[in-house]
Amino acid sequence: MKIRRIGIDTSPDNTAFLLRTGNGYSPEQFQALRKIEIGDGSVTILATLALVDDTGLLGKGEIGLGEQAFRRLGLPEGTKVSFRQAPVPHSLEHVRRKIDGDSLDDNDIREIIEDIAAFRYSPMEIGAFLVACASFMTTQETLALTRAMADAGRRMQWAADIVVDKHCIGGIPGNRTSMIVVPIIAAHGLTMPKTSSRAITSPSGTADTMEVLASVDLAEDKLIAVVEQEHAVLAWGGRVNLSPADDILITVERPLRIDTFEQMVASILSKKIAAGSTHLVVDIPIGPTAKVRSQREAIRLRKLFEYVGHKLGLVLDVVFTDGTQPIGRGIGPVLEARDVMAVLRNDADAPADLRERSVTLAGRILEFDPALVGGRGYARAMELLGSGQALAAMERLIDAQGRRKEVLKPGEFHHEICAPHEGVVTMIDCHVIARIARLAGAPMDKGAGIDLLRKVGERVRADEPLYRIHAHSEDGLGYASELALATSGYLVTP
Amino acid sequence: MKIRRIGIDTSPDNTAFLLRTGNGYSPEQFQALRKIEIGDGSVTILATLALVDDTGLLGKGEIGLGEQAFRRLGLPEGTKVSFRQAPVPHSLEHVRRKIDGDSLDDNDIREIIEDIAAFRYSPMEIGAFLVACASFMTTQETLALTRAMADAGRRMQWAADIVVDKHCIGGIPGNRTSMIVVPIIAAHGLTMPKTSSRAITSPSGTADTMEVLASVDLAEDKLIAVVEQEHAVLAWGGRVNLSPADDILITVERPLRIDTFEQMVASILSKKIAAGSTHLVVDIPIGPTAKVRSQREAIRLRKLFEYVGHKLGLVLDVVFTDGTQPIGRGIGPVLEARDVMAVLRNDADAPADLRERSVTLAGRILEFDPALVGGRGYARAMELLGSGQALAAMERLIDAQGRRKEVLKPGEFHHEICAPHEGVVTMIDCHVIARIARLAGAPMDKGAGIDLLRKVGERVRADEPLYRIHAHSEDGLGYASELALATSGYLVTP
Repeated sequence: MKIRRIGIDTSPDNTAFLLRTGNGYSPEQFQALRKIEIGDGSVTILATLALVDDTGLLGKGEIGLGEQAFRRLGLPEGTKVSFRQAPVPHSLEHVRRKIDGDSLDDNDIREIIEDIAAFRYSPMEIGAFLVACASFMTTQETLALTRAMADAGRRMQWAADIVVDKHCIGGIPGNRTSMIVVPIIAAHGLTMPKTSSRAITSPSGTADTMEVLASVDLAEDKLIAVVEQEHAVLAWGGRVNLSPADDILITVERPLRIDTFEQMVASILSKKIAAGSTHLVVDIPIGPTAKVRSQREAIRLRKLFEYVGHKLGLVLDVVFTDGTQPIGRGIGPVLEARDVMAVLRNDADAPADLRERSVTLAGRILEFDPALVGGRGYARAMELLGSGQALAAMERLIDAQGRRKEVLKPGEFHHEICAPHEGVVTMIDCHVIARIARLAGAPMDKGAGIDLLRKVGERVRADEPLYRIHAHSEDGLGYASELALATSGYLVTP
Repeated sequence: MKIRRIGIDTSPDNTAFLLRTGNGYSPEQFQALRKIEIGDGSVTILATLALVDDTGLLGKGEIGLGEQAFRRLGLPEGTKVSFRQAPVPHSLEHVRRKIDGDSLDDNDIREIIEDIAAFRYSPMEIGAFLVACASFMTTQETLALTRAMADAGRRMQWAADIVVDKHCIGGIPGNRTSMIVVPIIAAHGLTMPKTSSRAITSPSGTADTMEVLASVDLAEDKLIAVVEQEHAVLAWGGRVNLSPADDILITVERPLRIDTFEQMVASILSKKIAAGSTHLVVDIPIGPTAKVRSQREAIRLRKLFEYVGHKLGLVLDVVFTDGTQPIGRGIGPVLEARDVMAVLRNDADAPADLRERSVTLAGRILEFDPALVGGRGYARAMELLGSGQALAAMERLIDAQGRRKEVLKPGEFHHEICAPHEGVVTMIDCHVIARIARLAGAPMDKGAGIDLLRKVGERVRADEPLYRIHAHSEDGLGYASELALATSGYLVTP
């Protein structure tokens, strides 16, 4: 069969096309061929087979590849390939045993993760593995999963002995501490190659917000060069193939909303190990609308992070932080970048909570430096920020990554949501605020989002604005305002 | 958007096609539109969206529907339809709670099953539900699942007060008792509308074997007419929409090989209730290579059948049978049909085990007749079989359903597998025998399969044939013989 490229895109799925008749296959055989393996001996991909009745699309002796399959196989049109029914991955037997209640050993889990990283599992099969793990997982299994995920892709190497990183488990809008912590650490001279994700369900990820100021989509050479020059980077992690199994698992975890502590630990630590980190601060915000809702839960999660991290040779410091409300004022890329730069510039009106949180976390990281062990990190972080050295480091980092030429502005369509009566703000619901910001258009529309004008503990008069929604379109503003008017996310207690 | 039919078949999935550009959608928006709901206000379907670059396939203002989606929507080409991002089924929240370890109530399960029956779940989501249930399920949940599945489709109604059925949980090759039991029961005058499946993983299902003799693909009117005339039918169940959720769940259970007692009970009983049965005999074969391997397991399964069956108003009799080896001699449609007819004709060389098993099960069913309660069923079944009344009932049934004109023969390519040394056959592995028969071509090739020449307990000399493989092609014979030579499935103890 010769490859023919078909202008149909079914990403993220691979699709192959074959004429229904004249190939020597019976309808029954096509049933078995629904999932096929295609290759030329050197490379192979798995694809779902679609049957074509229209001979305009495809000739005899040709196998069509949709855009996604064509890209992934990477062979030119006309290449001779063969195909066969996709073999069932042997490791599915382990998944079946896990479903039946068995615990899996290191090798079982390694085989499963290798098959997933090689795209040999369907979403249904990945879902089965994840749900079986979500119902019960031993610490040994969590450790094995983390190690297998870290090993499944490439691993970055750095010249420095100490390579630090920080990670927040997420869930708190506006929590853009990394963009302040990284320049502080870089100014001190520790190596901190921070790769971040884009937002998947939140109004902005660190990569989305950094992109307001500089390019974050760095090729690997470029990323390494920036780190060598500046000790740090604030880049999107999608370009470097770190823990690829994690990226695949996430595509199934998100729609099924599987978010157990075990999978969280494996996901975060596998990425950090693959990124070459040796020392890591993990930020766990605790609050009624955060991912972790009590000290008790937080301690259980910390122990799991510590157990797995230490077994894998990571020096780990887990910090509990206040997760009762959003951090800073802006929610959404442009508004968050504004807050970050205000803190770095030591502006008088910079959000105090974002500054305090960032300095605390930076301080904990700095104490990985043997010279600062034992509580001297906070003062050093404050010094680096207050003196403008952190701002200078940030400006160098922006230039090294590639400064964005135009200055992005908050969305020109805006609407204020006001207090229903006089009182004190006693709660801000992180989920609701995040949903409103996303409806306004964040993170795709960089300037869309929310500007919080009042935070928890502040007094408001009746009809005084609580926050302002920004959008780049009337539609976005409409959707967001509609939800905000139904559920503002604020509790104002008279 | 106007419908355009696209000659691409992606069954069992629905695919819709849209031009990538010129529709006012951004690439980001298409991401959200990956799964869409299409409809004209009266009917809707869900489909996966593929983006088309080739304007030859599709014009502006047109939405393409693949063959499967076009069939399922059922609207003519050119009909104006609208589409939107497929809404996430609300019942997925219940699935998430089940994954987290909650038990679900009747309403939760009903909502899940209704959404599944309406094709609102992806295979990944169905897999998540099934795996969560496989890890733990209360008897109350099993009952609710069975009831919801039975209610999700249509329910057949019959004139008779007593409508009997039998079901074997499967796993034993050659176990074609239904084709003997049904004519015995029909000859007695009880109503037994037996619908069966085709083989999915076995070498033949009752529908495949009956099809050697008569048409089994009966439209509903025809099926009802046959039952009214003959008290019975032996038809394929695929035409009548009984427990449609079960058919959908099976497409995910099979590849994941989820086969818990709870799901087995819900699947079997929901189909029987939907088929209008009032009295049911369940046959549970016990053996080392059967689905149930010990008396203890069988008792647990029986209790679950009884609990759910009785709660749903079914009169249930669970029979344990010998599952240590295949039943009869033939494995595969033609060879099994030969055995069945030999038993019905009272041939001297008819397989005694198939005859004995069938009469036992028929006897248990006959005791649902108040006139035969208390142990008189066996003798009555023997009388109906021995007198030729059962054979006459079968001939009438074949004529009523539509007798097959040509007589099908066993595959002309054959090969005998011989004893490695002298001794006694002490074990026959049901799995291995089934796999060899499938490799030979069964059930697609009606004459392919295995003819067992020796059974457990029989003496053989060295090189004496144990069984004969039949196939319609040299390839089929080759594949099957290759496995049989590596693993014959027979244990001959010297």
